[in-house]
Amino acid sequence: MFSKILIANRGEIALRILRACRELGIKTVAVHSTADQDAMHVRLADEAVCIGPASSRDSYLNVAAILSAATITGAEAIHPGYGFLSENADFAETVESHGLVFIGPTAQHIRMMGDKITAKTTMQALGVPLVPGSDGELASIEEARKVAAKVGYPVLIKAAAGGGGRGMKVAPTEADLEEAWNVARTEARAAFGNDAVYLEKYMDKPRHIELQILGDNYNNVVHFGERDCSLQRRHQKLLEEAGSPAISAEQRDEIGKTVTEALSKMGYRNAGTLEFLYQDGQFCFIEMNTRLQVEHPVTEMVSDVDLVREQIRIAAGEKLGYTQKDVTFSGHSIECRINAEDPNDFSPCPGTVTVYHPPGGLGVRVDSALYTGYRVPPYYDSMIAKVIVHAPTRAEAIARMQRALDEFVVEGIKTVIPLHRRILENPEFQKGDYTIHWLENFSAQLQEV
Amino acid sequence: MFSKILIANRGEIALRILRACRELGIKTVAVHSTADQDAMHVRLADEAVCIGPASSRDSYLNVAAILSAATITGAEAIHPGYGFLSENADFAETVESHGLVFIGPTAQHIRMMGDKITAKTTMQALGVPLVPGSDGELASIEEARKVAAKVGYPVLIKAAAGGGGRGMKVAPTEADLEEAWNVARTEARAAFGNDAVYLEKYMDKPRHIELQILGDNYNNVVHFGERDCSLQRRHQKLLEEAGSPAISAEQRDEIGKTVTEALSKMGYRNAGTLEFLYQDGQFCFIEMNTRLQVEHPVTEMVSDVDLVREQIRIAAGEKLGYTQKDVTFSGHSIECRINAEDPNDFSPCPGTVTVYHPPGGLGVRVDSALYTGYRVPPYYDSMIAKVIVHAPTRAEAIARMQRALDEFVVEGIKTVIPLHRRILENPEFQKGDYTIHWLENFSAQLQEV
Repeated sequence: MFSKILIANRGEIALRILRACRELGIKTVAVHSTADQDAMHVRLADEAVCIGPASSRDSYLNVAAILSAATITGAEAIHPGYGFLSENADFAETVESHGLVFIGPTAQHIRMMGDKITAKTTMQALGVPLVPGSDGELASIEEARKVAAKVGYPVLIKAAAGGGGRGMKVAPTEADLEEAWNVARTEARAAFGNDAVYLEKYMDKPRHIELQILGDNYNNVVHFGERDCSLQRRHQKLLEEAGSPAISAEQRDEIGKTVTEALSKMGYRNAGTLEFLYQDGQFCFIEMNTRLQVEHPVTEMVSDVDLVREQIRIAAGEKLGYTQKDVTFSGHSIECRINAEDPNDFSPCPGTVTVYHPPGGLGVRVDSALYTGYRVPPYYDSMIAKVIVHAPTRAEAIARMQRALDEFVVEGIKTVIPLHRRILENPEFQKGDYTIHWLENFSAQLQEV
Repeated sequence: MFSKILIANRGEIALRILRACRELGIKTVAVHSTADQDAMHVRLADEAVCIGPASSRDSYLNVAAILSAATITGAEAIHPGYGFLSENADFAETVESHGLVFIGPTAQHIRMMGDKITAKTTMQALGVPLVPGSDGELASIEEARKVAAKVGYPVLIKAAAGGGGRGMKVAPTEADLEEAWNVARTEARAAFGNDAVYLEKYMDKPRHIELQILGDNYNNVVHFGERDCSLQRRHQKLLEEAGSPAISAEQRDEIGKTVTEALSKMGYRNAGTLEFLYQDGQFCFIEMNTRLQVEHPVTEMVSDVDLVREQIRIAAGEKLGYTQKDVTFSGHSIECRINAEDPNDFSPCPGTVTVYHPPGGLGVRVDSALYTGYRVPPYYDSMIAKVIVHAPTRAEAIARMQRALDEFVVEGIKTVIPLHRRILENPEFQKGDYTIHWLENFSAQLQEV
């Protein structure tokens, strides 16, 4: 096991990693920008090194400074957290070429999954389902009709040379197919000088479902079930759940088997997340994140795993030591991301936290680097805390989150807590009846009122 | 289900009950003394009623004022928490005679268990083991020898009329029995004018083990395993664990079966705890607490039950809805009681909390009514917070508690956090090798240094 780890991140995730290290008896090195000298991760680490000015480019993305800090302090491994350098294959390579361990997958796998097209073709070849559709260009309307019948309506006719929504037409039913075919081809010809089109299942009500996996260095891969992260605004997740209200245990087992077999064939190691669009029983792979996710705690709550501890153990060369059948799920978990933003227009609200009092009690976890008197700097991500609850059922988890947010005091800055309260009391949300479009519509409605 | 509950308590336990009510959608009425007007339970309750001056006798023990508060606010039930009126049978009776529900056992059972002799004879009759020994007075030294051989040495010869340690003599081996017999009888005659003596197994290295049970109004009783509360100072528990490092799953099942059968025969309802001295495989009943215990959270963490929620459900007439085989145990939990006391001499240290920052993250629960700026009043119990951790193994739970206490900031008053740190790092504690005498010896040693 390592004796010292450098944490190449800030905020709550730096603290999350620091906690796991401390519990494993591993010394920690914090790195920080000049803007973060009073940050919690700096205060709690065994050592701290300033790596540059406030701008991320010059500090948290400053590879040379981070490697120097690791060398000076004698750290043996680097945990990148999420964001910043966590999915930078060059960084992973540089870390390893300096004789340090990168706590994450190989540079090759980071690079492969970083290219979205390579990621899809790789996963498809390994048996992971993509959005169903034609196998490339369609030769004729008859072929389009045949493929559409197979994948089911509605379908989307898309220009092969397309992009930006042009040369793209939805056919809700078979009666609409011919018109969609003609319009899409005409638009494609006009826009791209090429009327080649292909066909995809059109997902009008998709959910964002993702699967957490861990692999060790010996081809053992297990999954820890799904998270439902459909509540997004401008592709930013706001509230996540495990399990998904839409996925049955059988569906979880099935997609889990597909995914773990694929990643085992790849030889994937450490933590990873496969993201899917999901609708009507179909999982369609969209991308893979080769790092720890912000929303990893909901998985920890329902499957009783410490994902960061596992990442460190794996990086140290330990075997998983358990198999898929040892992973069980219990209860329901919800995470609310608390951002320092105006809940009406989502504009960032940095400033000084004059009072910070987190909620407590049974089934409530708070991951946050805030404290009373802390000044939220304007330079970084606006997420300042995560409130995570666990309860036997989804309804009880919602009630628990409501009471936790009622207790949560953050004064001096605006946060999205009021928006979370509105979401939690909404009957559609309470029924679990939402898609990736729900939150955008819901917050637009709130603003009209 | 009730629509409004009055909480006849203060501090963290009032908050604990309030949280359970809120999650069940039940309105809460806080009662408070004039000294507690700024207390957290008052701030968070739906309604609050001042019931008297600072002195407990005039406020939290003021039955008339509490009943008036319940009547005025239309509360349908009263939760007494622990301490104060929680084991007062007259109070329970008065509450029920006013048409309100007392969230706890019947007045009859409270009274029965409140008398320590009645409690023992009742439990013995129901098959619960007491400290083994002679069946009353001994007729002769030969009888003493026979009983001693049966229960095993060391044994204790005790004056039947005794008390306060007089007329009490330990015989470590059979060779010492005759002398102990003679000395005890001589002392007993001199002190009480009565040389009748009886014999008990002498437990020189006992642990305090207690069993949590719940019963509904329909004779369904289940247990939720044991807690080890051996770490005590002057009979005040300081650190509790579930499960006990000394008890196997088989022992738990066996004593659990004995206890649940006994309580089911009694028709016991709501929460209760049977306390035992335990040594060398023998459980010896000492008393029963007919209420929620301070240390109930460690049981909640390992058995995934919400004990306060269950108390309320039971009081509302609901059935348990599960049986013993549905109760499973997972991982290990430790609770540290954080008292506002000088860690060297345990003298109370009330005062203003200038900074309060509780620990967070995976597996850490904090039950506390503190906040930054709160003035800890000098009138009540000195316990100001409970830190509870849960982890897969005992070693991991200890490491987690250590890092949680490292993060915990309470400034402005002294607390016992430094003492907990010393306990947690002690090799005997880490091995689980302690008795009810361990903490007294350990803190005496610390003071000598």
